[in-house]
Amino acid sequence: MSGTIDELLKNPVSFLADASADEDIAISTRIRLARNLGGRAFPIAATPESDLEVCELVSRAAAESGALGCPECFSFDPAELSELDREILLERRLASREFIAKTGGTRLLVRSDESCSIMINEEDQLRIQALRPGFCLDEVWSAIDRLDDELGSRLDYAFDSRLGFLTSCPTNVGTGMRASVMLHLPGLVLTGQIGPVMQGVRKLNLAVRGIFGEGTDNRGNLFQISNQTTLGESERQIIDHLKLVIDQLITHEKNARRQLLAHDRYGTLDHVGRAYGVLLHSYKLSSEEALQCLSGVRLGVDVGLFSGLDIHLVNELFIAINPAHLQKAAGVSLGEPERDIRRAALCRERLKPRV
Amino acid sequence: MSGTIDELLKNPVSFLADASADEDIAISTRIRLARNLGGRAFPIAATPESDLEVCELVSRAAAESGALGCPECFSFDPAELSELDREILLERRLASREFIAKTGGTRLLVRSDESCSIMINEEDQLRIQALRPGFCLDEVWSAIDRLDDELGSRLDYAFDSRLGFLTSCPTNVGTGMRASVMLHLPGLVLTGQIGPVMQGVRKLNLAVRGIFGEGTDNRGNLFQISNQTTLGESERQIIDHLKLVIDQLITHEKNARRQLLAHDRYGTLDHVGRAYGVLLHSYKLSSEEALQCLSGVRLGVDVGLFSGLDIHLVNELFIAINPAHLQKAAGVSLGEPERDIRRAALCRERLKPRV
Repeated sequence: MSGTIDELLKNPVSFLADASADEDIAISTRIRLARNLGGRAFPIAATPESDLEVCELVSRAAAESGALGCPECFSFDPAELSELDREILLERRLASREFIAKTGGTRLLVRSDESCSIMINEEDQLRIQALRPGFCLDEVWSAIDRLDDELGSRLDYAFDSRLGFLTSCPTNVGTGMRASVMLHLPGLVLTGQIGPVMQGVRKLNLAVRGIFGEGTDNRGNLFQISNQTTLGESERQIIDHLKLVIDQLITHEKNARRQLLAHDRYGTLDHVGRAYGVLLHSYKLSSEEALQCLSGVRLGVDVGLFSGLDIHLVNELFIAINPAHLQKAAGVSLGEPERDIRRAALCRERLKPRV
Repeated sequence: MSGTIDELLKNPVSFLADASADEDIAISTRIRLARNLGGRAFPIAATPESDLEVCELVSRAAAESGALGCPECFSFDPAELSELDREILLERRLASREFIAKTGGTRLLVRSDESCSIMINEEDQLRIQALRPGFCLDEVWSAIDRLDDELGSRLDYAFDSRLGFLTSCPTNVGTGMRASVMLHLPGLVLTGQIGPVMQGVRKLNLAVRGIFGEGTDNRGNLFQISNQTTLGESERQIIDHLKLVIDQLITHEKNARRQLLAHDRYGTLDHVGRAYGVLLHSYKLSSEEALQCLSGVRLGVDVGLFSGLDIHLVNELFIAINPAHLQKAAGVSLGEPERDIRRAALCRERLKPRV
């Protein structure tokens, strides 16, 4: 139970679905549970000593759990990592911005395949996460439920028989659960339907965010849809409600793509082709534009306009183009202009047609 | 002395310079002379009968001239051509918009290699043109001077000993000459110097226009620089003045390109690469964007960033992407959306890397 970021980086990107019948629109499924230990101050009010004790207690419980796959799991003390390494954790969706900003008393445990992880002393003492490619709420729920049971049997969770699990922020009290599905919706964006559709989603009491959380909008045409409420509904109800909405969004997106191909085939080809052209021929490329172009190319692969391109490559680039991954691969810290040059070089090199 | 537009189209594009030490910036040189016959009403006031007589008189004189290479020359009666064929003449710079709009009483004589031509009954009875690739005012002047002498010895030009040649519009009285050089100035455009530089050119009493005359701005980063005045200066003075200014503009452009490569190499690579990417991967392409991208690619070839690309191909596309040439090649009349699709297909097909 240890490991380095360099070891972690040997993993292929685990949370992006390959294009396949059902997985081309739903990119990934994620559930996180917020938990705290009874009789202890929550992180916001805890002493450094208490934080460390919590790190120890949770790590010990996790070490004995099968769901996290320890001892073949990673354990990171963010305070000992460089800023760049901490950003890597963020870009791989293993840690939150708030978590990596903390300067001590935290710990991150990660299953070796990155499918499960625990942030210790983020906003809550435990933030347990399960993350898988594709649309698989049931599978992800069983994985996290098992891990939660294993931890719960070894730790004394703060639980109120009336309210449920107690959390730092009242919005998480109850199930402490946030379930989310990341959708790739270029069809709805290109046909201009995304606005009204997402308004509808919000009215169903679901949250809509970008790939890296709030404020990242619809970068790369990626949308995370998640439940807003944790109180008054069971985990099963939350999942079933989300599943229903995601199913509808996937149907909407499929219709939009059909519509594009039927009514604006050349416009769609043009969109996809130009995206590919930029990735293949630019020498300066921002993260945002790269994501946008990768989205275009992915759409092309999904709808069968691109036969020769390997979707694994596109998925790999979705992560590799991010600032920290880019700098880590370069082995040096780079300013934004240098990153844009290197990002373009990476895309040209990886995507160039092989003879 | 006859011929069809289809025969004309077999000619390679004759007026675009290949990239070479001196020709990469000055694309082409053109001189035209305005002439009229003495004792006859000028076209604006002439009867249809007089127009036809002028056509006959000039055609007969031209048939005997060596400079036009008759009888192996083309003679077109625009009234007998389709609208599309007339547009072809415009796109090949053999006729003016005003000329092809006339519905009768005109004639166009063209040397088989398109280097010399005579519009009969445009604004003036004769508009004699010589057009060559590169920066070659002296060469073009000898060619047109010879043709003018040959015609003048057979025709009775309207000439006033004090004013010089008489023309329909007072701005052409005197030499009746307009000499122009088409420059490709992407360096000055990219470095933002084009505005002040062109303001300076205008102050020197020269006109600045786009590739297809007024109103086409700096499409494709192409600028036609020509003399404004025809009165009070000899042909030699006009040419020498123009030569001096063009030499300076070429120096400015070379400096701008050096500056770009020295201070923003990646920005320049990016500009060139993206232009190539659009030409190679788009499926809808307007004339304007195509010209802009061809300009970018030509810059890349000129400064040595593109070694594999054939400049003849780029020159050919500069003409082939124009609406009439595109429709002529397709063999059908096409609306703008269809043209954009076909233009993109043409560029993809012609520019795709050969194995």
